[in-house]
Amino acid sequence: MTDSLQQLIRTLSRLPGIGRRTAERMAYKLLLRDQNLLHELVEALERAGREISLCQRCGNLTSVDQDPCRICRDPKRTNKVLCVVEGAPDIQVIEQAGSFPGRYYCLRGKISPMQDETVTRELVEKLLLRIQEDEVAEVMLGLNTDVESDATASLLAEVLRPLGIKVTRLAFGLPAGSGLAYSDPETLKRAMKGRQDV
Amino acid sequence: MTDSLQQLIRTLSRLPGIGRRTAERMAYKLLLRDQNLLHELVEALERAGREISLCQRCGNLTSVDQDPCRICRDPKRTNKVLCVVEGAPDIQVIEQAGSFPGRYYCLRGKISPMQDETVTRELVEKLLLRIQEDEVAEVMLGLNTDVESDATASLLAEVLRPLGIKVTRLAFGLPAGSGLAYSDPETLKRAMKGRQDV
Repeated sequence: MTDSLQQLIRTLSRLPGIGRRTAERMAYKLLLRDQNLLHELVEALERAGREISLCQRCGNLTSVDQDPCRICRDPKRTNKVLCVVEGAPDIQVIEQAGSFPGRYYCLRGKISPMQDETVTRELVEKLLLRIQEDEVAEVMLGLNTDVESDATASLLAEVLRPLGIKVTRLAFGLPAGSGLAYSDPETLKRAMKGRQDV
Repeated sequence: MTDSLQQLIRTLSRLPGIGRRTAERMAYKLLLRDQNLLHELVEALERAGREISLCQRCGNLTSVDQDPCRICRDPKRTNKVLCVVEGAPDIQVIEQAGSFPGRYYCLRGKISPMQDETVTRELVEKLLLRIQEDEVAEVMLGLNTDVESDATASLLAEVLRPLGIKVTRLAFGLPAGSGLAYSDPETLKRAMKGRQDV
């Protein structure tokens, strides 16, 4: 096997959910049966790497030439309800459910006792700044359902409630122990409707 | 979702074994959590696309600056036994079994009654040319075990046997209905040892 083939297989294996065998099949398809796909893949990767950045305001994925993102600029949305999520993919899933009228904020990290204290403080302070700027009345936590996310929810409720901000969390229609990004739109819709005080 | 993100997810979905969900996870990992991997993947793809070609002699994957390939140039190997496979990945698998002393030939297609006659004739003629050049005494068929491969085996045996060439096929230690590339080295080793006249 040539060096560059081995290198390609090793690199493909680092993608999530891809074992050695699948990486080999990919490499062979790209080199033997579909060189067009190889070139299109290179192009798509380069274009995405070049054009996609994170919205400065909410942390959502957006184009470099569209910052703040589409959702942050949408005049039909209300600033009153802020949905706090752990990562940008979660915004996608909630948008697909199609019934959320507010705006988003990506924590990009966990806020929990297991976390370094300085990191926690910085994350909370950035969130508070956003809440004050937008005069947010309700923070809806769209977090995952693992232990660290539960800790994040409690901690945020502790900080925000004394400031007169309503803190809710997506109802536990979500299957426990799983990631938000893997739930279906219907489950999510119900979970949003049934959201309850933390 | 931005255009270039959708484009990347669509392109990743075209890889073998990759559904929409896995493609999304890949894209998010490449864009949000591991931009190094994105750049390394682009580099590995470009390098492989640039450096890897097919050996003019046997159809194996090789470097553009190493044609004929390592196996075709190896003076310790015998020309007497020629292993005929359907595709380059099959050579890799047989080499991993580590007990084949001869050389290889990739058909790069099926030779069967279901196949266009002109294509079949061309494939057979190219193989015959190689057999005559190398004074091959035995053709060992390392084919898959589906119906079309069985037809290919019969047809090749019909053509080659009248020329005084021994035609054998890997013993059916291989699991039926599956691809050669998915078998383990030990099964393959046994299949080679027990190879029988067609």
